[in-house]
Amino acid sequence: MFSNFKCEHSGDPTMFEPFWRKMGDRSTIVIPGWQSMSYFSDIGNLCWFLEPDFAKEIRRLHKLVGNAITEDHYIVVGTGSTQLFQAVLYALSPPDATDPVDVVSAMPYYSSYPSVTDYLKSGLYRWGGDAHTYNKEGAYIEMVTSPNNPDGHARESVVNLGGGTRVYDLAYYWPQYTPITSNVDHDLMLFTVSKSTGHAGTRIGWALVKDKEIAKRMTKFIELNTIGVSKDSQLRAAKILRTISDSCEHMATSDHSECFFEYGRFLMARRWEQLRDAVRRSGMFSLPEFLPDFCKYAGVATTPHPAFAWLKCEGEVQDCESFLRSHKILTRSGMHFGADPKYVRVSMLDRNDTFKLFVERLLSINS
Amino acid sequence: MFSNFKCEHSGDPTMFEPFWRKMGDRSTIVIPGWQSMSYFSDIGNLCWFLEPDFAKEIRRLHKLVGNAITEDHYIVVGTGSTQLFQAVLYALSPPDATDPVDVVSAMPYYSSYPSVTDYLKSGLYRWGGDAHTYNKEGAYIEMVTSPNNPDGHARESVVNLGGGTRVYDLAYYWPQYTPITSNVDHDLMLFTVSKSTGHAGTRIGWALVKDKEIAKRMTKFIELNTIGVSKDSQLRAAKILRTISDSCEHMATSDHSECFFEYGRFLMARRWEQLRDAVRRSGMFSLPEFLPDFCKYAGVATTPHPAFAWLKCEGEVQDCESFLRSHKILTRSGMHFGADPKYVRVSMLDRNDTFKLFVERLLSINS
Repeated sequence: MFSNFKCEHSGDPTMFEPFWRKMGDRSTIVIPGWQSMSYFSDIGNLCWFLEPDFAKEIRRLHKLVGNAITEDHYIVVGTGSTQLFQAVLYALSPPDATDPVDVVSAMPYYSSYPSVTDYLKSGLYRWGGDAHTYNKEGAYIEMVTSPNNPDGHARESVVNLGGGTRVYDLAYYWPQYTPITSNVDHDLMLFTVSKSTGHAGTRIGWALVKDKEIAKRMTKFIELNTIGVSKDSQLRAAKILRTISDSCEHMATSDHSECFFEYGRFLMARRWEQLRDAVRRSGMFSLPEFLPDFCKYAGVATTPHPAFAWLKCEGEVQDCESFLRSHKILTRSGMHFGADPKYVRVSMLDRNDTFKLFVERLLSINS
Repeated sequence: MFSNFKCEHSGDPTMFEPFWRKMGDRSTIVIPGWQSMSYFSDIGNLCWFLEPDFAKEIRRLHKLVGNAITEDHYIVVGTGSTQLFQAVLYALSPPDATDPVDVVSAMPYYSSYPSVTDYLKSGLYRWGGDAHTYNKEGAYIEMVTSPNNPDGHARESVVNLGGGTRVYDLAYYWPQYTPITSNVDHDLMLFTVSKSTGHAGTRIGWALVKDKEIAKRMTKFIELNTIGVSKDSQLRAAKILRTISDSCEHMATSDHSECFFEYGRFLMARRWEQLRDAVRRSGMFSLPEFLPDFCKYAGVATTPHPAFAWLKCEGEVQDCESFLRSHKILTRSGMHFGADPKYVRVSMLDRNDTFKLFVERLLSINS
């Protein structure tokens, strides 16, 4: 029963735990029993359940990193970016349409898009498949995940038809994973604490939304779906983001390893090195290649080190997931991402022991 | 934009704030930055995102109060009982059915049932209206809210057809609102921290579910909807429930006002007395009447003091909501509950100042 989910979400970002231990009390929150009892966080705000402190820290962090423009955008908070994805679908679906709007994404796409789009058999939206081959008339929504889950590549929209809306899932557009090449300014951008800071258990995400009516309808969705978003987790997320901004603001003068993104980038680089080394030595697999690019945040050229490895079984093996499972390595088949079963997705964000074990087992296959 | 929601949810249970202030540090939580980072709470549990401490405190509190049997029930945690309501609809809908299953509830019913059932135009379920007049063939789901929102009456199921499943929404089945006449043992029961303790901002609810497959499907819904439930809020809810159990466990020997339910019952009784007095003096309204019953928890006969007053405009006034709004009293029209607009729902759980103002304004109408 459980292992299925464990596979699907083995992007559990526990690798950042040691950093947060090192931060000690700086990221601790204390909430007395009488605080935050009301449904409401900010009665005058369009998104009335958004904690003002969290909103402030979101804007501050984006400004510091330079990865997304928050000016002229509304912030809508969600119970993770999964809820925000559904809020976007609801907000973009014409309520009076006779047919559901198609939701598409370029293959290989995040495996949750199809299931989360279709599990309620909504009359408002439905999964439309691979964006590369999409060519229908009428309204559609294109999910652009950049860097992409599962394969880590930077992406642009691929559908070029009228009547479409692009939604940018930027969960991994942070300096520990990829060079920050531009300060993006899309109409609809999704982010999540899970991947940016490693706090998956808080279930907090945020959307930057240019259009007021869309932000209103997203807010309405979250009102109907869960009557707002946990205040406790928002307060915690605010503290976590503040700790990151504080830790990186004075990078020039302080210890680099004190800055979360530097720490994360270093760790990801080391893991990718270990994985590439194992793959090279085994001779049975291949990995995507990434070119370095200038990271405006770091001020130097950096190489992408994605949160997932999109591993391919070379040679005879057709079902890479089963093959690896027989060697006690749990991965997720490419099939779930609309791709060939010769591919699997492997998490790069697990705890150190788990990652080491994975690399060891990969190496042992060849021996 | 905002006032609409404010009216819909003016069940904001802020009246319990003073109690939690009095509890001081006893209900404070402290969460260090490195804690609860993972998606997972209890990897061996069917509901893998349920915090074990919260589950323990749920069972302890139900046992202490004697309002619901937790033995032989799975606990599924949700982002408020609104999410659990949807999880139930998903779990009870046959995935291969050609027609959506009907969701019904006896009039006057909780106004969110129709909107939350229908907002995604799901092919799995749809709002079927007043349970009193429901007489279709086939599968249906009956929501039994007891005590009822909006009118406060204890309820039993009213549909008596084959193929139906009853879901008990017991959000208000706590000693501060109603006599606990029996330790109920239904297959599907919903509870929420919002109404039991006053912590609406945590967005935490729980379901007690007898059938394993239904509990699994509810868990699956929450996985697809929000990939689990905020750990921070679950940890907080655990502490809050623990404080209540601690405060009431030794009632015989300690100060009664230290026990949350005694405190709440006293406050509710006083408010209802003030409201009934105002209604009597005005001569323009009426309220439902409730008979006392033996409360097994309190060990004495107690009178229901519902969280909402189901107020009726007597005489000429047809649209009670508009009439009261013209006297600066915000209520929610009976129409939203499937009832006559001569009725309105008024929150009894607001902060003291707001409640006092409401009673004063009600009295001033007559003068």
